[in-house]
Amino acid sequence: MKTLTWDHSTYYIDRKPAFLVSGEFHYFRVPKADWERRLILFKKAGGNCVATYVPWILHEPKEGDFHFGDIPERDLEGFLSLCASLDMFVIARPGPYQYSELRYDGLPPWLCDNYPELRARNIAGEPFRISSISYLHPLFLEKTKRWFDAVCPRIAKHMRSKDGAVAMVQIDNELMGIHEWFGGWDYNPETMGFGREDGRYPQFLKKRYGTIAPLNAAYNTSFAAFADVRPTTGPKTASDARRVKDYDEFYFTTIAEYSSTLAGWMRGYGIDCTICHNSGNPNMNAYFRETVAALGNKEFILGSDHYYNLNLEWAQNNPTPQYAANMFMSLEMLRSMGFPPSVLELPAGSLSDWPPITGKDLSACYMTNCAFGMKGINYYIFTGGKNPAGTGVTGEIYDYGAPVSANGEVRPSYKALQRFGSFLKRNAWMAGSRRVSDVNIGLQWQLPRGKYSFNRVKEIGYSDSEAWEFTIKGALLSSQYASLSPNFADLSSDELLTTLTTPLIVPSSVSMSADIQKRLVSFVSQGGSILLAPVVPYLDEKLNACTILRDYIGSPVIEPITVQSPIVTVGGVNTVFMNGGLFKCVKRPDHAEPIASEETTKSEIGWSREMQGGGTVIWLGMHWKNATKEHAAMMRYLVRELGGRKPVVWCDNQNLLTSLRVKDNKAMLFVMNLFSAPAQATVTVDIGNGKHKRMRFSLGSMEVKTRKFTLAIKAGK
Amino acid sequence: MKTLTWDHSTYYIDRKPAFLVSGEFHYFRVPKADWERRLILFKKAGGNCVATYVPWILHEPKEGDFHFGDIPERDLEGFLSLCASLDMFVIARPGPYQYSELRYDGLPPWLCDNYPELRARNIAGEPFRISSISYLHPLFLEKTKRWFDAVCPRIAKHMRSKDGAVAMVQIDNELMGIHEWFGGWDYNPETMGFGREDGRYPQFLKKRYGTIAPLNAAYNTSFAAFADVRPTTGPKTASDARRVKDYDEFYFTTIAEYSSTLAGWMRGYGIDCTICHNSGNPNMNAYFRETVAALGNKEFILGSDHYYNLNLEWAQNNPTPQYAANMFMSLEMLRSMGFPPSVLELPAGSLSDWPPITGKDLSACYMTNCAFGMKGINYYIFTGGKNPAGTGVTGEIYDYGAPVSANGEVRPSYKALQRFGSFLKRNAWMAGSRRVSDVNIGLQWQLPRGKYSFNRVKEIGYSDSEAWEFTIKGALLSSQYASLSPNFADLSSDELLTTLTTPLIVPSSVSMSADIQKRLVSFVSQGGSILLAPVVPYLDEKLNACTILRDYIGSPVIEPITVQSPIVTVGGVNTVFMNGGLFKCVKRPDHAEPIASEETTKSEIGWSREMQGGGTVIWLGMHWKNATKEHAAMMRYLVRELGGRKPVVWCDNQNLLTSLRVKDNKAMLFVMNLFSAPAQATVTVDIGNGKHKRMRFSLGSMEVKTRKFTLAIKAGK
Repeated sequence: MKTLTWDHSTYYIDRKPAFLVSGEFHYFRVPKADWERRLILFKKAGGNCVATYVPWILHEPKEGDFHFGDIPERDLEGFLSLCASLDMFVIARPGPYQYSELRYDGLPPWLCDNYPELRARNIAGEPFRISSISYLHPLFLEKTKRWFDAVCPRIAKHMRSKDGAVAMVQIDNELMGIHEWFGGWDYNPETMGFGREDGRYPQFLKKRYGTIAPLNAAYNTSFAAFADVRPTTGPKTASDARRVKDYDEFYFTTIAEYSSTLAGWMRGYGIDCTICHNSGNPNMNAYFRETVAALGNKEFILGSDHYYNLNLEWAQNNPTPQYAANMFMSLEMLRSMGFPPSVLELPAGSLSDWPPITGKDLSACYMTNCAFGMKGINYYIFTGGKNPAGTGVTGEIYDYGAPVSANGEVRPSYKALQRFGSFLKRNAWMAGSRRVSDVNIGLQWQLPRGKYSFNRVKEIGYSDSEAWEFTIKGALLSSQYASLSPNFADLSSDELLTTLTTPLIVPSSVSMSADIQKRLVSFVSQGGSILLAPVVPYLDEKLNACTILRDYIGSPVIEPITVQSPIVTVGGVNTVFMNGGLFKCVKRPDHAEPIASEETTKSEIGWSREMQGGGTVIWLGMHWKNATKEHAAMMRYLVRELGGRKPVVWCDNQNLLTSLRVKDNKAMLFVMNLFSAPAQATVTVDIGNGKHKRMRFSLGSMEVKTRKFTLAIKAGK
Repeated sequence: MKTLTWDHSTYYIDRKPAFLVSGEFHYFRVPKADWERRLILFKKAGGNCVATYVPWILHEPKEGDFHFGDIPERDLEGFLSLCASLDMFVIARPGPYQYSELRYDGLPPWLCDNYPELRARNIAGEPFRISSISYLHPLFLEKTKRWFDAVCPRIAKHMRSKDGAVAMVQIDNELMGIHEWFGGWDYNPETMGFGREDGRYPQFLKKRYGTIAPLNAAYNTSFAAFADVRPTTGPKTASDARRVKDYDEFYFTTIAEYSSTLAGWMRGYGIDCTICHNSGNPNMNAYFRETVAALGNKEFILGSDHYYNLNLEWAQNNPTPQYAANMFMSLEMLRSMGFPPSVLELPAGSLSDWPPITGKDLSACYMTNCAFGMKGINYYIFTGGKNPAGTGVTGEIYDYGAPVSANGEVRPSYKALQRFGSFLKRNAWMAGSRRVSDVNIGLQWQLPRGKYSFNRVKEIGYSDSEAWEFTIKGALLSSQYASLSPNFADLSSDELLTTLTTPLIVPSSVSMSADIQKRLVSFVSQGGSILLAPVVPYLDEKLNACTILRDYIGSPVIEPITVQSPIVTVGGVNTVFMNGGLFKCVKRPDHAEPIASEETTKSEIGWSREMQGGGTVIWLGMHWKNATKEHAAMMRYLVRELGGRKPVVWCDNQNLLTSLRVKDNKAMLFVMNLFSAPAQATVTVDIGNGKHKRMRFSLGSMEVKTRKFTLAIKAGK
């Protein structure tokens, strides 16, 4: 059987770059007699791996009463052996949570029904829904350990290292989802240890503050000891916001602890393959910083789930450009963390029949994710079947509109998987490819994490959540609309300093860690150029004064503007439509030149400064959401002013997305029409050595086309 | 020149049924030299009318300093005369508000800048944005009167009755938008008269309660006099909810008073044509009940604005089935009010360039609105131009991506208007058509109006807002998905009693007016059958006990169920996916048979009762959002149980919408594919006399197709 390995950007099968193409395939739902035929169907669609939950609810129906292999639905090992015999890798997902539309999210009813003390609780102490458990509750860990004692050795027997099929094992499922979606963070007092000096929360605070005095100074409180401290919500002051932010971060460390505990147990049973986890959606990726720090990126992979529609409450019926922007952001986050970007649940159907999931939309979704860097895939679900008695919550049958139906029929959407699988196989070199960019957008992990802390504290100023919205809806969408090719650059990594020749857009709130501020100063000092928008940070991430960056760029004084109908001019671009916040500079740094103004209030809202011996700094006091051609023109102007090269991919139809992926001298251009009307475009690509390639495209609605060609020179890193 | 008349369902041109096809055409933006060419372009696209704002900001630039006709941009009368000479009707919109991306929403800056006391205020007394004015403020009325003194006589000269072009005059624009979108209702104390015995609010309350004692009983307060009463927000109790609801209704009466005042002034100047107004969006239609009561439906028309995307903050990029459902609801509301349903702003472009408005999407949007009953149209905008100096907020040019660009070029989207115009002309008989239905959904005006009052008061129970969500996302979408043809039936009108043979779905909160309860009792007593869901009302609209309907159906006792993963069975349909609230019946009426249950809690959640000498009553304790095929099967089961006929239009592709419009023996079938993948379908239509017509359809993405045919018998009313 083949080997599966990976590094920071690429999966390898038998040491050759390859896409990991997995499909969700539940041995407990698919009739055993049909396992082999359906597995072969998946192989024919390009699959090389299957993923399956291993439901606790099914294998320990009564407490302490474990069953494996007694009935076909519980024949986990039979399934793993069959996969090995078919040369298919397996991703095993033994929980403890599964979700998967199983009763109690896959936890045994006896656990939830008999131990109500396990339930996660909100800050008022009220329990969440019955199956939302407090992960680190000692009793839950005890019960989980017993489940792992039963299931993990069975999985361990089937490791790839022992010629088995299992190449990855997943800890839990969409961690934090059962909390955040049903009430917020968990404040279970037993788990968090409120009131106990040796409790988790007091210990976390002690580690952070040393003694109680600095905590009280930070929180504006008068607690006598760490054991007395309680969290708060709905902050109205900076002091409160610090307290909330500390709890956010504490909560994330409990997730890291829980993950490490599960992973440690798994290792103990001889599970020696990659351990993985799936973030519930792109916006949750950032919640896993602590977990990735704890588990590393060598033997652990974090992936994300990339659905576009699961029911009529979703914003869009299909994979729109707004979806594409969020998935690109997600894939870039995973890449920045040092993983080959993996979509551990990529839709192949939907729980709902309506709005429908069509093969056409699926194809557009797959090609778009691929264009933006997806290297590992797990279709959810490839095929379903009958729910074992008492386990399903959506009826007798779990069909999910999958490419192969619950009763085994091949649906038209199977063709979408087949076409994509064949594309990936023909272009396996792309598994080692990277996306060419001509502008970078600074990724600040704190921004998508700030929604509960200082989001709404007006006294602090422009918030993390606002800056995050601006990152996606302004900076990213407008650069794409300008036919630029933006990548994200992690501001917390020194790799940033290897990208000095690419202009860097830095969306920022008023808070930015000292570490990042220093790195940005280094970046500019060494010749890099940045656009800082819409504010200049004056606080660090703990909301204490920190003006390293501000001092360096010449101590500008920035204030918000309130004006009903602003008239904004930026550089040569007249009347940029404003639909976000505006800020004016009341004291411009020496040597800076004004470049932008708001006419009705006669405000200066942007300036540019060449730093002596360094690059250019542009500050622009605008938070906008992409809307008009002027936003694109403004982006092109700004990037040009930052010394950027001409766009590497020039598309004359601004509604289309493009992505150029290269490796050595191979190149693949993706052109994406994610709207519902057909479109034409001429695309010109800089292929190096001063040469260009010009291509015509004609695209139907929701269609992605590709063109493969050869570069004039070998592409750099 | 031709005549324009109308009745409750139809526009007539020269007394023949015809669609009113207007296009927004701003004489102050389009260069005068190009007026005629562009007007002729619009006629060629099927237009018979143009609409234009008459901006106060432009014609009274300094207070008291009126200008008309001095410069081409202000040549209103020249424009009106030209339209008459081209045989084009005109809808004149003199405000006072225009919006239209004009500075201060079209109000003169001197007015907003110099009279800050005019601004609308929130309940805390804080002013809204600068151009959000308190409509009935005496000073605003005084200034508006002076503006009307100047502009209205000029418009009156061009009445159709005097052989001029003006066939309609609009009062104000999207009333309440400048309040609700920027803070909520207006609580300006001067306007509302808080604290003054003769103030509007005290007088409203006095009229409603007579003496202060019943008010105090209702509100659980101890005010000494009506003058002392102040409104409240964020109700937590039924008493508070009554107080909020009274203010909602009071606010709506101020809108009626303001509208009547403007309309009265207009009549005084000799404006003798139809007066109209455009509700800002479908959900606001219900806010105009008081205004329609005041102005009637003989000389006044209420229309609505039906945009699908104006910027990336909109839920969808294109006219999806969710859009279609809301527009259908809107058109049905207008029909129920006794108007020929008119879309006074139908998109022909967008303020934003992105997401793009494509010709293909526009065609789908137009045909869908037509399928669901639109009789009058005003494209927003047909063509734009340069903003007069100092009036625009989106730059020098107001282009709006219109079919004819600001500089006069014909864009590809023009073809969408042309095709639709030609369709309407070829099928002018449809202007007098009605939609055939096989099930009715009860329209309760209070439901979309309840979002500020008892929406969140848990003690009261299932709220108006919840029932409204269920109306659209459950009852309507699931009936459409079941290939039924639902219409709305106004529960507050005795016309309901003429529809006894059509099953009636009655979504209800716990509150329903005594009037409606009585009418429903009459409906069933006379043989009509109803589905009541998900609760049985026990309060009237003032939240006082009222059990007329409940007593009649046998006094069931209903309670909410809390269950994490319900397993629901309805009639023959197993395991209906539940994604909303559930209610159980703890005491079933005598003679009622259970028809639905929730398995995990062993609850009875539905029953059916044949009323002696009357029709059938089914109660079903479910609030669902359409999602699965089981929802459709359940709807078909329920309608069958209510004695419904077979679906009049049977479409074998559940993702497609259909609408059958008939007049005499003419029929037009619309089949709508509002998703992004192509679709096929076979549609069978009952054409009367036991005959059926079978048709095959093949549709592209976002495509609407029609088939015209003849019925075997003349269709009834």
